[in-house]
Amino acid sequence: MRKISGGVTTARGFKAAGIYAGIRKAKKDIALVYSEAPCVAGGTFTTNLVKAAPVVWCQDILKNGQPKHGMIFNSGIANACLGEQGVKDNYEFAAAAAKELNIEPEQLFVGSTGIIGQPLPMDAIKKGVPSLVAALGETEACALAAAEAIMTTDTKPKQAAATFTIEDEDIEIYVGGMSKGSGMIHPNMATMLSVVTTDINIDEGLLQEAVSKVVSETFNMISVDRDTSTNDTFIVLANGMAGNEKIVKKNKDYDNFETALKVVCKSLAKKMAADGEGATKLIECKVRNAKTKEEAILLSKSVVSSNLVKAMFFGADANVGRILCAIGYSGAEFDPDKVDVFLEVKSNTEEEKLQLVKDGMPLKYSEEFATEMMSQKEVTIKIDVKAGYEKATAWGCDLTYDYVKINGDYRS
Amino acid sequence: MRKISGGVTTARGFKAAGIYAGIRKAKKDIALVYSEAPCVAGGTFTTNLVKAAPVVWCQDILKNGQPKHGMIFNSGIANACLGEQGVKDNYEFAAAAAKELNIEPEQLFVGSTGIIGQPLPMDAIKKGVPSLVAALGETEACALAAAEAIMTTDTKPKQAAATFTIEDEDIEIYVGGMSKGSGMIHPNMATMLSVVTTDINIDEGLLQEAVSKVVSETFNMISVDRDTSTNDTFIVLANGMAGNEKIVKKNKDYDNFETALKVVCKSLAKKMAADGEGATKLIECKVRNAKTKEEAILLSKSVVSSNLVKAMFFGADANVGRILCAIGYSGAEFDPDKVDVFLEVKSNTEEEKLQLVKDGMPLKYSEEFATEMMSQKEVTIKIDVKAGYEKATAWGCDLTYDYVKINGDYRS
Repeated sequence: MRKISGGVTTARGFKAAGIYAGIRKAKKDIALVYSEAPCVAGGTFTTNLVKAAPVVWCQDILKNGQPKHGMIFNSGIANACLGEQGVKDNYEFAAAAAKELNIEPEQLFVGSTGIIGQPLPMDAIKKGVPSLVAALGETEACALAAAEAIMTTDTKPKQAAATFTIEDEDIEIYVGGMSKGSGMIHPNMATMLSVVTTDINIDEGLLQEAVSKVVSETFNMISVDRDTSTNDTFIVLANGMAGNEKIVKKNKDYDNFETALKVVCKSLAKKMAADGEGATKLIECKVRNAKTKEEAILLSKSVVSSNLVKAMFFGADANVGRILCAIGYSGAEFDPDKVDVFLEVKSNTEEEKLQLVKDGMPLKYSEEFATEMMSQKEVTIKIDVKAGYEKATAWGCDLTYDYVKINGDYRS
Repeated sequence: MRKISGGVTTARGFKAAGIYAGIRKAKKDIALVYSEAPCVAGGTFTTNLVKAAPVVWCQDILKNGQPKHGMIFNSGIANACLGEQGVKDNYEFAAAAAKELNIEPEQLFVGSTGIIGQPLPMDAIKKGVPSLVAALGETEACALAAAEAIMTTDTKPKQAAATFTIEDEDIEIYVGGMSKGSGMIHPNMATMLSVVTTDINIDEGLLQEAVSKVVSETFNMISVDRDTSTNDTFIVLANGMAGNEKIVKKNKDYDNFETALKVVCKSLAKKMAADGEGATKLIECKVRNAKTKEEAILLSKSVVSSNLVKAMFFGADANVGRILCAIGYSGAEFDPDKVDVFLEVKSNTEEEKLQLVKDGMPLKYSEEFATEMMSQKEVTIKIDVKAGYEKATAWGCDLTYDYVKINGDYRS
């Protein structure tokens, strides 16, 4: 298992493109990921009751039994809250691309992200699609162009890739992906979109199982502002071009694939949390020894979601009462008088650790040292609740002036 | 039923004081509310698993069957997360005041608010208590001094009062209170404290029923930052000095009392939301025609709690997709294609109303007019979900640079 550089074109047979079609101001705004070889697919979607047209489309076609060939994207407009118009525009977007690719519209997933309640500029999109298809390529530059075209308030494109070997057959499997979303969560730039491609040959049901499990431990463990978007979509496409014997049960190779998928998704998720709107640092919260897995998740997410914890990291002020308070209202059961809290920072050359709380009571620690640790770009809070044996890790970012600035006047 | 000016000394027989004891920098920091006549009491407390020593104390003595005589407060230190030391200090605080007042410590509620994990400066407190008791008085100035002494990041003292007549006996009943907390919720300046005094003669069980009901519709409907404090405490004291025939059942007089208590608590709650840390305006969200009361509450709180909605009000940018998104992830059931959303602003001279969404779709409205409305000090979002007949109202505030500033470096 190795993390490698790459993205959606790393796996065999996948092409990508990202171009400017005129939806946004002078920024690439439509993207395509495509495999000529037919794919099986898995996916997860927003739980928001208000779902954008492309989300409903993806949920529908995921179950249609047809082989899939890719996913088309636009940024700038979310195509949400538009009734029949939104459904029609979404179909026409997929149909325009499908026509160029000689496939059915129902073989193409769609991801839209941007402002809610404004219609897609269909003329610009229809004019852009042929150029987009013409731009498809297998290079890293093509993958990067696609990753850039789906960005909204993101400050960086987000890509990740991994590889592992199916040993009995000596076949290398590649998994690579891209994502956008400065956080799970901002309903306007309607948030998280991600697609991962792989050349593994795998049963579609097993693929969906791997997707659901991995998402629960990666994308679902990040929080930027607790708002859950209308458009969140994650799709995995597997075209089988590695030529391995089809994986039809949960054997060692399945486990390795699941791990590789998790490596890619965790990397993308952490990049999204670190690039949260206005964020200056990545906050990781590791919870240890919770009573149940669910409670470990509740505890860790409660900490990275707390505005007060987030603001405290922006100020690098080790106000540990806020961490105790955030776990206290998480809904998890534990004995407050048993909790230990640590601050951890890792760099290439060293590892620093500072205990802030022992058995529920704040210790006397060096404020200066704590501030220095909290000033790093990546900081870990480790919490031992001593209530059981389960653990979870969540990621978030600090709350800054720029978050307020970006969201106080998003549309202008 | 009339709202009147006043606070904790408005009801007959209640005295108050607030002085500087040396806990904080040059600001009144201890307060006392006292009735020589014995009181029955009701209360509600934080649901945070991590509870400060004074919260546990109040919960315990509320059930001890003894008549109560008042409540003592300090600001600056929350007396939370200190184990046995916190319990001991809290008792000594109550005992020092009880000794001066010739009552038992268990007849006095305690409210602390401030930094978590730092011990109370008991020397300063014990030295201050006799001067505090000596300063007790029935004037409005005394009530104001107490309201000022419990402030932390609050920018204004918060008081409210109301009166109504028990008609058969021609007796005026007074209800008055004070509160602190720039929001429900900031674990460090450990948040909401409120005490309401009344001279009504009422059964203690009925008082508790009124308290629980009113809190669910007032204090529990405000949100500043979704963090639930370790110290939230609300106490109502009734000393019976109005001389009315004791209220022992839910008759018309009970209903009037409940309404008066609600008027006072709603006024205090709205003042707290409007004075949320860094806030520049009060946001009210009225939900109409929800399927159940619980869902109406979920919907209205989801809107005023959304960071994105809050930031949008700071920027006066009518980005209605964020409101639709916030109700979509609230957990309530409704048909997104039926939702209407209105913006409402009231001044002394006129009332303005603007429909933003009809049947789930954003309308074309004047951005300029919407921005003008959203720039007011108090703005109402009305949401009709057309799913039933229940309603709820929640209050919050905008998210501003100053919130981040205040909470990024709270302790310095």
